Amino acid sequence: MTSGTVSSVSTNEIRVASAQVNTTVGDIDGNTQLIEKWIKLSQDQQAELVAFPELTITGYPPEDLVLYDNFITANRIALCRIAAKVENIVALVGFVDSEDGKLFNSAAVLHQGKIVTTYRKIHLPNYGVFDERRYFTPGDDCPIISINGIKVGINICEDIWEPIGPAEVQCASGAQIIINLNSSPYELGKHGHRVKIVSDLSRRHHVYTLYTNQIGGQDELVFDGGSMLVNPDGKLMGNSALFEESLLVADINTDPKKNSLFQQQNYRVSNKNLAQVGKSSTVEISTTKPQTKRSKLPRLSINRLGELEGVYRALIVGTRDYIKKTGFKKVAIAVSGGIDSALVTTIATDAIGAENVIGVALPSRYSSEGSITDARQLCSQLNVELWTIPIEPGHAAFEEMLNNAFKGTEPGLSEENIQSRVRGNLMMSIANKFNWLILSTGNKSEMATGYATLYGDMAGAYAVIKDVPKTLVYELCKHRNTQGPGSPIPQATIDKPPSAELRPDQLDEDSLPPYDQLDRIIHMYIEERLSPDLIIQKERNIGPGDDIDTIVRRIVQLIDNNEHKRRQAPPGVKITGLAFGRDRRLPIASGWQP
Amino acid sequence: MTSGTVSSVSTNEIRVASAQVNTTVGDIDGNTQLIEKWIKLSQDQQAELVAFPELTITGYPPEDLVLYDNFITANRIALCRIAAKVENIVALVGFVDSEDGKLFNSAAVLHQGKIVTTYRKIHLPNYGVFDERRYFTPGDDCPIISINGIKVGINICEDIWEPIGPAEVQCASGAQIIINLNSSPYELGKHGHRVKIVSDLSRRHHVYTLYTNQIGGQDELVFDGGSMLVNPDGKLMGNSALFEESLLVADINTDPKKNSLFQQQNYRVSNKNLAQVGKSSTVEISTTKPQTKRSKLPRLSINRLGELEGVYRALIVGTRDYIKKTGFKKVAIAVSGGIDSALVTTIATDAIGAENVIGVALPSRYSSEGSITDARQLCSQLNVELWTIPIEPGHAAFEEMLNNAFKGTEPGLSEENIQSRVRGNLMMSIANKFNWLILSTGNKSEMATGYATLYGDMAGAYAVIKDVPKTLVYELCKHRNTQGPGSPIPQATIDKPPSAELRPDQLDEDSLPPYDQLDRIIHMYIEERLSPDLIIQKERNIGPGDDIDTIVRRIVQLIDNNEHKRRQAPPGVKITGLAFGRDRRLPIASGWQP
Repeated sequence: MTSGTVSSVSTNEIRVASAQVNTTVGDIDGNTQLIEKWIKLSQDQQAELVAFPELTITGYPPEDLVLYDNFITANRIALCRIAAKVENIVALVGFVDSEDGKLFNSAAVLHQGKIVTTYRKIHLPNYGVFDERRYFTPGDDCPIISINGIKVGINICEDIWEPIGPAEVQCASGAQIIINLNSSPYELGKHGHRVKIVSDLSRRHHVYTLYTNQIGGQDELVFDGGSMLVNPDGKLMGNSALFEESLLVADINTDPKKNSLFQQQNYRVSNKNLAQVGKSSTVEISTTKPQTKRSKLPRLSINRLGELEGVYRALIVGTRDYIKKTGFKKVAIAVSGGIDSALVTTIATDAIGAENVIGVALPSRYSSEGSITDARQLCSQLNVELWTIPIEPGHAAFEEMLNNAFKGTEPGLSEENIQSRVRGNLMMSIANKFNWLILSTGNKSEMATGYATLYGDMAGAYAVIKDVPKTLVYELCKHRNTQGPGSPIPQATIDKPPSAELRPDQLDEDSLPPYDQLDRIIHMYIEERLSPDLIIQKERNIGPGDDIDTIVRRIVQLIDNNEHKRRQAPPGVKITGLAFGRDRRLPIASGWQP
Repeated sequence: MTSGTVSSVSTNEIRVASAQVNTTVGDIDGNTQLIEKWIKLSQDQQAELVAFPELTITGYPPEDLVLYDNFITANRIALCRIAAKVENIVALVGFVDSEDGKLFNSAAVLHQGKIVTTYRKIHLPNYGVFDERRYFTPGDDCPIISINGIKVGINICEDIWEPIGPAEVQCASGAQIIINLNSSPYELGKHGHRVKIVSDLSRRHHVYTLYTNQIGGQDELVFDGGSMLVNPDGKLMGNSALFEESLLVADINTDPKKNSLFQQQNYRVSNKNLAQVGKSSTVEISTTKPQTKRSKLPRLSINRLGELEGVYRALIVGTRDYIKKTGFKKVAIAVSGGIDSALVTTIATDAIGAENVIGVALPSRYSSEGSITDARQLCSQLNVELWTIPIEPGHAAFEEMLNNAFKGTEPGLSEENIQSRVRGNLMMSIANKFNWLILSTGNKSEMATGYATLYGDMAGAYAVIKDVPKTLVYELCKHRNTQGPGSPIPQATIDKPPSAELRPDQLDEDSLPPYDQLDRIIHMYIEERLSPDLIIQKERNIGPGDDIDTIVRRIVQLIDNNEHKRRQAPPGVKITGLAFGRDRRLPIASGWQP
């Protein structure tokens, strides 16, 4: 990253690094090694300071692991061990601090073998996927570290999302640089929002802000990184590539002559409001400037991803890390020839390589010839091994076993589900036999409406696209085919009308409204939390339709009635503003009729 | 409840009622009707005040329903509707208040058609199964209502569990009676703890405390009631029967001459600490005393349940309400002849009647004759219809379908699980066909160690005994056989060594340590959150054994490795201090090695 040329080092200048790393929750030893390695990398770049993501040592979110005393002890020992090795660099490392039985989401300032000071997060998010008030007590101190006279304020994630937080206190006390440690999960459109928050903060207070985020998947969450440096004008100077481990290194010159903005502290918060956040104190640190000259850094770059590519990368990283961090190597996927399993198989291949993916075609008496051809073409284009296991023997055996119990009843949903569950069983048998992980293929539209069979197509360890609405599934497939490598998803799979093929000539649209309408209704009910009345009003504005009232109420009822299925669904990557899972907690037994 | 005699009504006397009702989460209309009915019942008893449980109108816990605006509006409309009908009685009703986009867990004081005032809960629990900080903002006001000069302080649940709360402020301002509205879930041993908390509070401040709790099941929780009145000496005057709807009515005489303790306010909290809780104000209410004389009340009774009976009743009520509140009438249970399914079938029968329970025996080639006989005897003794569906056709069909894929491998876990999953499928087919609900039969020891098949015996809507350790399963069976009615559980089921019967001569103890040791280790690791090192130390003190180290580490690893299964398990009744489910939130992908 450094070029050969050298520049003279001013006393107003500090070289900072942001280490965008991929930690693993609970893997304290592994995370410790990772931190030590990236401190070394930062030193190789002659950085005087390196910032890591929030809760670096424990991984984020550590959930109830932090309620175990021995976990907290191990995390503190790791911190001391890292500190002992830190030499002529200031390292900011996230860890769980504890005092009098209380826990704090903290950042330690490490220098010359010591923990110089710590910062305790003040604003603890407790909404959406976050449960920080379950574990942590807010801090009440807003320290500034003065590194050779350059004043740096440290805080953590949510702290800068609230109107008045530690950054305000630190800036009022003269901070020239704000460093914010994050574990901020990806969701569609969120990165732009983050840039705005950081930019507004910098401009408001005329300070540099270094924002460090982690990358990687953790159960339902995927962290996208995008660590950034913003200047006192609020201008984004550069950011790390999204979804990749990366070290951002930059020289910050705090000379007021070079940077007139430092002199203007025109944003004022009342002292009373500042006092409510916490008090400020300053800790002095002297580092030995590396030499009078050091290597010149290349220009920072600005990395962006289009929306579809962002979602696709989130799905890849979430899937890859779930497989890797649960200790698996290979996955198997039931490939139906339909669009959902085509997308999941392509994602899995992009995530862990075709040699680690096995497709299993499970045709029934109702499967069309086209489906089998499409499944075959997909796997051949991806170089994925395809097994074929016709399910007729199982299907017939269940009919035989249930013949007596079902005597005199009309065939219906129960009979349809049998096929799906025979497939689920076969996949689980294969998983158990070869120690592979099963990826299930249901999308968000199905998860919402319950258009999926519990223990059938819902069976699996990880539901890759459970937060991807069906219309977005199509867009992602087209995007991936256009983007390459190759165009793995058969055009026939994209073109044909979706069908579960559980009875002759069945089509999804026999039971559900068209997917564009369905996805709009789901979005309004789940993500925007609108009432059916409001949804009906909005749908009426979009287009004609006599039965919009009936359609909306039916979809809302389907969503409400299928909470019991979702509760037993495998986890999957959150990509929207509101995913099923930890993000949305609803009672199963409920008398609410919206 | 009232007897024919009458007594004269003193101005220092107030007749209070505690309505221990069974609300349903989200059923605002139903809960409204319930509240109106019990206000009427209280008036029939000439009560001047009636207290309902916490969040009466919405049910508890309403979870993310409260994030829907139309839900909050509906709950406020219901409150106004109830208030409009309230006449000459003061009713304390729990609801969700909102202001400036913030929500408050509140109690409304209703009188003469009006909402006289409201109280907003100050201490919001956010641990264990509770997520109140996710939804609510704490209040900062500690109102007293003066009813014909008698001063009553109102607060909610957790408020009295903290050392300094609104009760302290209210007592410092002259409250003579504290009324605490609760939705406090059952757990083993908790009721005694509650009595102590209430008793200490009363004694400390020399006040009467009326504690109102709800009863009934809600997903993983069951509320046990036990509403109580404690006098200023800290003496329990009486309580409502546990696990039943019940109205407790009592006359409280606040005449200092009759009750010298009211004059002694010797417990002092500093004004600064009180000010941190909130300010106090008094609202005057005049009720028309019913007559100069009113019916005399019978003596209050003290209701207690033994530990085993308490657990058993919790399981019945939790199961009954889950079935009822999800709109089902009948359940089916896979009856193996073993102890777990025997207990679940007996609980279901006690909960909803034998005519609504169907047992299904699903013998395989490995099922012993004894198992089938035991299943038959159990159902016959319970008068439960028993179906028998041999699973051989399904078992054989899966072997046939997998024959090619499994060529050259040794039969093992995968083959064993097939049987369990064929059974799971059959149960789900029956459930889908007849619209019955499946109760699954796994116990806590199995849930912990993963000694259960995902989508196999774990399949079902409700896992009745998932929080009951195996050793407690035995105790409950013996208790139920002793207690009656009848002795439904076959002695052979109790006496034989437990087996999954998935291969010839298989016994649980081939794979697991003896259940008494296993359950101790699970208790220490799950409920006490001890480290393996500490567990090993404690186990060494209990008895000899060279391989305690190995056993403990293996069990802990099994528990950690099976988080993915538990995440897909159906909900079940929480009965211990720490249940799997919302109560214990751990990452699936985790590198932690305790």
